[in-house]
Amino acid sequence: DSSLRVFTLNSNPHLAEQIAAHIGTELGKCSVSTFSDGEVQINIEESIRGCDVYVVQSTSEPVNQHLMELLIMIDALKRASAKSINIVIPYYGYARQDRKARAREPITAKLVADLLQTAGASRVITLDLHAPQIQGFFNIPVDQLLGVPILSDYFQEMNLDDLVIVSPDHGGVTRARQMADRLKAPIAIIDKRRPRPNVSEVMNIVGNIEGKTAILIDDIIDTAGTITLAANALIENGAKEVYACCTHPVLSGPAIERIDQSKIKELIVTNTIPLKEEKQIEKISQLSVAPLISEAIIRVHELQSVSILFD
Amino acid sequence: DSSLRVFTLNSNPHLAEQIAAHIGTELGKCSVSTFSDGEVQINIEESIRGCDVYVVQSTSEPVNQHLMELLIMIDALKRASAKSINIVIPYYGYARQDRKARAREPITAKLVADLLQTAGASRVITLDLHAPQIQGFFNIPVDQLLGVPILSDYFQEMNLDDLVIVSPDHGGVTRARQMADRLKAPIAIIDKRRPRPNVSEVMNIVGNIEGKTAILIDDIIDTAGTITLAANALIENGAKEVYACCTHPVLSGPAIERIDQSKIKELIVTNTIPLKEEKQIEKISQLSVAPLISEAIIRVHELQSVSILFD
Ligand SMILES: Nc1ncnc2c1ncn2[C@@H]1O[C@H](COP(=O)(O)O)[C@@H](O)[C@H]1O
Ligand SMILES: Nc1ncnc2c1ncn2[C@@H]1O[C@H](COP(=O)(O)O)[C@@H](O)[C@H]1O
Repeated sequence: DSSLRVFTLNSNPHLAEQIAAHIGTELGKCSVSTFSDGEVQINIEESIRGCDVYVVQSTSEPVNQHLMELLIMIDALKRASAKSINIVIPYYGYARQDRKARAREPITAKLVADLLQTAGASRVITLDLHAPQIQGFFNIPVDQLLGVPILSDYFQEMNLDDLVIVSPDHGGVTRARQMADRLKAPIAIIDKRRPRPNVSEVMNIVGNIEGKTAILIDDIIDTAGTITLAANALIENGAKEVYACCTHPVLSGPAIERIDQSKIKELIVTNTIPLKEEKQIEKISQLSVAPLISEAIIRVHELQSVSILFD
Repeated sequence: DSSLRVFTLNSNPHLAEQIAAHIGTELGKCSVSTFSDGEVQINIEESIRGCDVYVVQSTSEPVNQHLMELLIMIDALKRASAKSINIVIPYYGYARQDRKARAREPITAKLVADLLQTAGASRVITLDLHAPQIQGFFNIPVDQLLGVPILSDYFQEMNLDDLVIVSPDHGGVTRARQMADRLKAPIAIIDKRRPRPNVSEVMNIVGNIEGKTAILIDDIIDTAGTITLAANALIENGAKEVYACCTHPVLSGPAIERIDQSKIKELIVTNTIPLKEEKQIEKISQLSVAPLISEAIIRVHELQSVSILFD
């Protein structure tokens, strides 16, 4: 379809190329650079008038740079008369600032949603929002894709015996349940609690893990404190071995060192955030979300071009 | 007045302190840092409910970081029930992306105005917008202060003889005229033109500079190409000596080296953008805009507190 265009900015150029290839098109021509003083400079080098444009950009580190690239690109596309501006944000940054946990806190996940709409986005395609409520921060359609099927398929092919799927905290139980259904396995939950202030947390494991192969699943692994402590607690409490997986490998600060030194046998992540070279350690396997996103784009675009969704 | 609060973010903490001191108050308590993955974290550490808040932040380099700090701060202040959120942006970044010079260009200066309003800003105080039209990008009041009086006063005190005020391009003639009026001097204009494509520019000087002390004035000095070429052309064409001045010392890339090696005797700038240590060379003098901004804040606040402007 000649009216569909896929563009990439600077966060995930490789993923964007895979997506374009899956769809059977080429990436739109566009240069995204910075002026001498650090201001973002974007030049769209082909006409997109009347086109349904898909822009691939995670708001991963450097998050403010990547977000501004996206906002400026949306502005440029809008002024160049794109028919629809669909933003593909594999990893939605600032998602953990999604509520006022204390007085006078910002709700940056909502702010970012407002900024994207103000710039002129027509639709969002994303994966595993940290909180499903973030969909409601937008007044435009949000398609949320899930990493669980991709991660589950990988474990399915490994043919592991006597599995248990473990959520590292209460917030992640639904996700663990989804994976458990696909792998026909039971679930367990790490039930952390701090008995008194300034006393270290106790890792209580709810569910049977004795002698089993445990798979820890989370949406985001950032500094990897939670997941590596959980893995070690599982081994100490009798699990045979521990795998871990997540959709979004933020892996900041001490994450790589912690994972390397932990009892985790293998960590499976997706490429919603590309891994810099120094993060590509042997223990980590990365799966591509390109097929998933490509199918979503094709589905959305079919509806768009028959004018059901937007006109 | 107990309802007036001044906060600083990370671009101009020193200027903000001077402003608070001028007004006779202390900076509001607030921590602005980043999480391990680079996301901005803001904690406002005192109640601002019902207050008129002034936030000092230039969108200078790193521009995207500084802009996001400002947007997130505005969001936090709004949710904490500030009565008005007045943003003091001494240097307004992205001001040179203020029109579509070519097809499919963004108009980032307008985008930034929209983002600030979406976040919840009630009013803007700024200095020397690169184009006065940027005021019209906002639907909230914009107070534009001028650097010319501060820069002129400095030269007045130097008691230089036989002055001529020079605009380095056609766009800056109005500014040169304002300074010339204050210093009771004539003006001249550097009239650059490129005779044919791929032929270097010819520097034609309109006005009499022979034997005079020339003062070049611009709003922004970025890579300093224009200003240093202009200074050298002035000397070659018979000026006795050349001073240069500007409001916003962006000074990126080769700027410092160029200034150092140029015929400019002294460069006078303001502190709308603080100079990093490596930019503090002997030739450059920096004047504070704190008195100017403080007076603007007091004037605005007096009107606000008698409920003329906002209620
Ligand atoms: N980028 C970040 N890195 C680490 N912690 C964060 C980040 N953003 C928000 N938070 C904190 O994470 C908590 C929310 O996480 P959660 O309970 O998993 O939704 C809040 O206390 C936030 O202050
Ligand atoms: N940060 C920047 N650094 C250098 N040039 C820029 C920057 N932002 C915009 N421009 C360019 O500057 C020109 C506008 O400058 P002016 O004619 O002085 O208003 C346009 O061609 C822009 O593409």
